[in-house]
Amino acid sequence: MTKTDIATRVYNHTWKLDPIIRSLIDTDFYKLLMLQMIWKLYPEVNATFTLINRTTSVRLAEEIDEQELREQLDHVRSLRLTKKEMIWLAGNSFYGRAQIFEPEFLAWLGNLQLPEYELAKRDGQYELTFHGTWMETTLWEIPALAIINELRSRAAMRSLGYFTLDVLYARAKAKMWAKVERLRELPGLRISDFGTRRRHSFLWQRWCVEALKEGIGPAFTGTSNVLLAMDSDLEAVGTNAHELPMVVAALAKTDEQLAAAPYQVLKDWNQLYGGNLLIVLPDAYGTTSFLEHAPEWVADWTGFRPDSAPPIEGGEKIIEWWKKMGRDPRKKLLIFSDGLDVDAIIDTYRHFAGRVRMSFGWGTNLTNDFAGCAPREIAGLKPISIVCKVSEANGRPAVKLSDNPRKATGDPAEVERYIRFFGSKDRVEQAVLV
Amino acid sequence: MTKTDIATRVYNHTWKLDPIIRSLIDTDFYKLLMLQMIWKLYPEVNATFTLINRTTSVRLAEEIDEQELREQLDHVRSLRLTKKEMIWLAGNSFYGRAQIFEPEFLAWLGNLQLPEYELAKRDGQYELTFHGTWMETTLWEIPALAIINELRSRAAMRSLGYFTLDVLYARAKAKMWAKVERLRELPGLRISDFGTRRRHSFLWQRWCVEALKEGIGPAFTGTSNVLLAMDSDLEAVGTNAHELPMVVAALAKTDEQLAAAPYQVLKDWNQLYGGNLLIVLPDAYGTTSFLEHAPEWVADWTGFRPDSAPPIEGGEKIIEWWKKMGRDPRKKLLIFSDGLDVDAIIDTYRHFAGRVRMSFGWGTNLTNDFAGCAPREIAGLKPISIVCKVSEANGRPAVKLSDNPRKATGDPAEVERYIRFFGSKDRVEQAVLV
Repeated sequence: MTKTDIATRVYNHTWKLDPIIRSLIDTDFYKLLMLQMIWKLYPEVNATFTLINRTTSVRLAEEIDEQELREQLDHVRSLRLTKKEMIWLAGNSFYGRAQIFEPEFLAWLGNLQLPEYELAKRDGQYELTFHGTWMETTLWEIPALAIINELRSRAAMRSLGYFTLDVLYARAKAKMWAKVERLRELPGLRISDFGTRRRHSFLWQRWCVEALKEGIGPAFTGTSNVLLAMDSDLEAVGTNAHELPMVVAALAKTDEQLAAAPYQVLKDWNQLYGGNLLIVLPDAYGTTSFLEHAPEWVADWTGFRPDSAPPIEGGEKIIEWWKKMGRDPRKKLLIFSDGLDVDAIIDTYRHFAGRVRMSFGWGTNLTNDFAGCAPREIAGLKPISIVCKVSEANGRPAVKLSDNPRKATGDPAEVERYIRFFGSKDRVEQAVLV
Repeated sequence: MTKTDIATRVYNHTWKLDPIIRSLIDTDFYKLLMLQMIWKLYPEVNATFTLINRTTSVRLAEEIDEQELREQLDHVRSLRLTKKEMIWLAGNSFYGRAQIFEPEFLAWLGNLQLPEYELAKRDGQYELTFHGTWMETTLWEIPALAIINELRSRAAMRSLGYFTLDVLYARAKAKMWAKVERLRELPGLRISDFGTRRRHSFLWQRWCVEALKEGIGPAFTGTSNVLLAMDSDLEAVGTNAHELPMVVAALAKTDEQLAAAPYQVLKDWNQLYGGNLLIVLPDAYGTTSFLEHAPEWVADWTGFRPDSAPPIEGGEKIIEWWKKMGRDPRKKLLIFSDGLDVDAIIDTYRHFAGRVRMSFGWGTNLTNDFAGCAPREIAGLKPISIVCKVSEANGRPAVKLSDNPRKATGDPAEVERYIRFFGSKDRVEQAVLV
């Protein structure tokens, strides 16, 4: 007998909008940490964020309906922090520290509405930009990416029948669980979810996070997604990102200021946070250049997050530098977070076991891996390499070089100027899949 | 086409337990306010709580399976306050007041496990008692009642087919919505949900609360259920109950102490709370006696909650007393909460409109009114009058007289002694339906 709850069915079928972003804290935790720093130290700076689809072969404007995209973006602008969320941010401990967010910051955040967006189509791609003060625009990054990615999944699945969908998710679950079983073999593993921005969908990310919680227990050290951390009583994890050095470098008026920019943001960071939050992201202008010019105190920080060099080479370079600086790598932490899949996690884990503390931030291949799950190949379910980067600060172009030239962003002429300035030693081209 | 999510189905069908109480804060807010006072002022007092089924024609031990009852009670003992709940209790404002709960109290509450219970059958009824310190046993009242009532509903519905159930709930929803439409007609109405203890089920209470939120908007001033208040961003409401004077009276060693007991608890209360929380519950030993001997300062409190006199007579008596004490009733608040249905709410509202501020606490007839909803009469869906009262404090019998002799509780000889002491002027027999 088919049992239909008529009220539920009608409700489901007449939804105005099935929102992709359900909450302002459906974002990465490090955005909030960085935001507090921006709000304190750089409240007057303007910053433009721009969507960049590196997978140019995928013509997003042809896959995703513009009206649906606008509705989802508009919905994000209608969101405000709820009372419960504000209370939780104020009352929870993060990285073992109570009251990491100042009451004045939370009061400001409680009134925040994300600023307007500009959306146009060009050559089959969307041009999506966010103008405003840095402290307003920065929070657009994650929802903008999550919306593009989930709208793309939805479009890809629109034509699928019920059983095709049922089998698709059943296979994806089985595939995910096979990964869980492999990860269980690694004693002392520490891994967390970094997959918000490129997830297949919110509900699928939540399933994956709950699966890790049940499947690997204490080896699962948390999620970067603040909403999921709150709802599932997990640790919210993450520290800082490239936008900090990118903006400070763009604002530099002299060569000295430009050279100092990567270290200036660490000083700013240290002023606000400490302990386990002292994680260096060294690759904005090349890790080799960063290490060569790093002041002594950088070696006192808890760890590094090599984010664009191949994990083993990148890790070795940092370990070598710690040794040169007279520090014991076994007391230091490396956080790997660049395009990891289970094989890379296991290889990296085995390579460094016993030589350094390690932690893995698992992103796209955790929350958006449907390869081989559909009964027939569906191109729209294959994740793309898409980012939303700061492109200008106070009208000056912002640039990232990265250890992988294919991950560089910014005006080409300005990228060239930065390469001349910072050098490009040890930068290695690698395919960018996600 | 029937669509079955096999994993969900198997999960549903192999549940160890479908818990009735999902959280330690699935309780009335006033229990927490009282608990903090007990924890502060009476931490050494022992108190026994006892279940009393006043509807003796319903033989509970024949309707409810003992094993199921034990499993549900055991499950409550496995619950602890979660991190999110603790953070919310610490961070939320109640009655406009921040940090109403002291950190030390919350820390203690975070470790609380409810004490063991004693369960036996006698004459077709359950004898259910809770022994321990008052600050441990008091929290048993609401879950014990909610469990008995929901197990009774479940038993009554066990034999019903799917369509019978579908129609049952459809009618109950329609009936509830008709009440909403009548309440909408009353401008400036203030009403809240007091229906946790005698609800049909948790999910049904949640539906009713959400229906009121959508249906009467700002006239719905909150819920006594702490969990629902948190999850639905509603105000948690409620102040104090009879157990306070009952225990303090039981502990009295002299006639003077006994006479002072009803006012002593108000002094204690005032020490901890203030403002809108200063609500007098006058009927523990008869409202007439209470008012005759009340000190002047009682008239300065915000309002009264007449809980066992008929609402209009009870309210008039208190208004008359305020006038005698030279207070303006229009600045005072009456909270009606005794067995209200929509007719009584409307009559009372119309009677007092413009003469006093009013608020209604709607209980059993909000969350457990299925009369006329089942396709055939089902006795087990008719709510019963059941309470869980403090019966002893430090080994001495505890007594309530109430304005309605049928609501009196306690050892009969001791009830007689209290009547001789406090008098029984104006106490009026009324049928106790819920």
